[in-house]
Amino acid sequence: MRRSVFFISDGTGITAETLGHSLLAQFGNVSFEQHTLPYVGSPEKAREAVVRINEVAAQDGIQPIIIDTIVDKEIRSIIASANACMFDVFETFVGKLETLLGEKPMNAVGKSHSVNTQTYKTRIDAVHFALDNDDGARTRHYDMADIILIGVSRSGKTPTCIYLALQFGIRAANYPLTEDDLDSESLPKALKEHRSKLFGLMIDADRLTMIRNERKANSRYASPQQVMRELRAIESIYIREGIPFLDVSEMSVEEIATRIIDQKHLKRRISSN
Amino acid sequence: MRRSVFFISDGTGITAETLGHSLLAQFGNVSFEQHTLPYVGSPEKAREAVVRINEVAAQDGIQPIIIDTIVDKEIRSIIASANACMFDVFETFVGKLETLLGEKPMNAVGKSHSVNTQTYKTRIDAVHFALDNDDGARTRHYDMADIILIGVSRSGKTPTCIYLALQFGIRAANYPLTEDDLDSESLPKALKEHRSKLFGLMIDADRLTMIRNERKANSRYASPQQVMRELRAIESIYIREGIPFLDVSEMSVEEIATRIIDQKHLKRRISSN
Repeated sequence: MRRSVFFISDGTGITAETLGHSLLAQFGNVSFEQHTLPYVGSPEKAREAVVRINEVAAQDGIQPIIIDTIVDKEIRSIIASANACMFDVFETFVGKLETLLGEKPMNAVGKSHSVNTQTYKTRIDAVHFALDNDDGARTRHYDMADIILIGVSRSGKTPTCIYLALQFGIRAANYPLTEDDLDSESLPKALKEHRSKLFGLMIDADRLTMIRNERKANSRYASPQQVMRELRAIESIYIREGIPFLDVSEMSVEEIATRIIDQKHLKRRISSN
Repeated sequence: MRRSVFFISDGTGITAETLGHSLLAQFGNVSFEQHTLPYVGSPEKAREAVVRINEVAAQDGIQPIIIDTIVDKEIRSIIASANACMFDVFETFVGKLETLLGEKPMNAVGKSHSVNTQTYKTRIDAVHFALDNDDGARTRHYDMADIILIGVSRSGKTPTCIYLALQFGIRAANYPLTEDDLDSESLPKALKEHRSKLFGLMIDADRLTMIRNERKANSRYASPQQVMRELRAIESIYIREGIPFLDVSEMSVEEIATRIIDQKHLKRRISSN
């Protein structure tokens, strides 16, 4: 079973996409053909969108689904004229919020992804912090870190740090435990001094072998023996040193990041997005 | 006016937060005290959440708002017993989708942020591509790039590239045009060869002066004269070379990224969020 879906917004389209993906994921037997139409901010653009939706409806022989977060009423009513089934997110919720709060909505487009100087700075600083403190490159700024991820090579540290920075403004460093570190069976000095900020990533041996083989096929680095040896050594360090850790084998970057925030009670530094 | 809001999920909480921020941004006169409760995945955790919500309700003297994306019906009904006004996203939309599609929802938690091996790889590869090709560090992989951002120092290239990678799996490189490049009034050879992939960032002089001053206060680099000179030179290169560009002074990273996708007709390589 196949169905076309349009995520439509007069802003970035990110809210419509995020909500839409969550809803559609509940229907795993349906194959959704997804289109995102952002910045539909004028009646003219809305009419172009309607033409496109109607073409897809004619091709499919069945009404597409629209999930929209359009703020402007006129634009919304043009979209509503398409040959489609419309899930109108703002109309559904904003009216109810208006009644509850006793306040008029601003009906301003793109408010949640507009730029706020302080938020922007916090976020960009966090991204640069993650890049500058990636992969153990430097350890002298660890006093400014909110969290320091440790783990073996390719266990997911870098994308998690970057996601924590972009999404939440959290300053995340990461340090890969090398073979020397693992052999010495103790934490490097730079890490010992910041023990309360450490969080370990753990990963399934088969999955790590696969990931490393994609990077350096048939190398010692990617061999099952080497992977197994490193994972055993690092797990015993986590346990002996009392470092909290998480098996991330089945997790997306979003899940790793939000589980770490939850477990370490990290404070979000930005609340936008 | 102040109001407490709880974003609650049995998964990461990202969908509830993203939608919640978009909705609340429409009520700019209200100060929202935001709490996110992710991984509320058991009746016990749900009851703990209810206790916390009721405490906040008692302190505030007014019902908090709940925006939830809880999949499990039992957990949802426990949360619904709190002294709060609940905006139940899945209940609102999933039933309607079920009727429309003639399919039962899977009622499985965290589906949209669960890991899919191909998506994971595409995404992580894109993140490593962005890091390896950041700041003009290398130019020899530009044939593999989907887009190459150019601009003066601190105009927002790096965060935008990383966001394109994490959110959409797009391979984005960036190259800062240096003073030498600007003085020579022509594009470096590495860029000329990939002209169709180039996209320029432009930024307001006052804003760039402020950003650079936060980095290196009172330097020549951050002086209004230098900033103005660089911006004039780069704008004339964009125009002369026919490179599309965007004034990002008032834009969030999300907006810069999605506007570039829209203008350059870039294809999303992943559709999960």
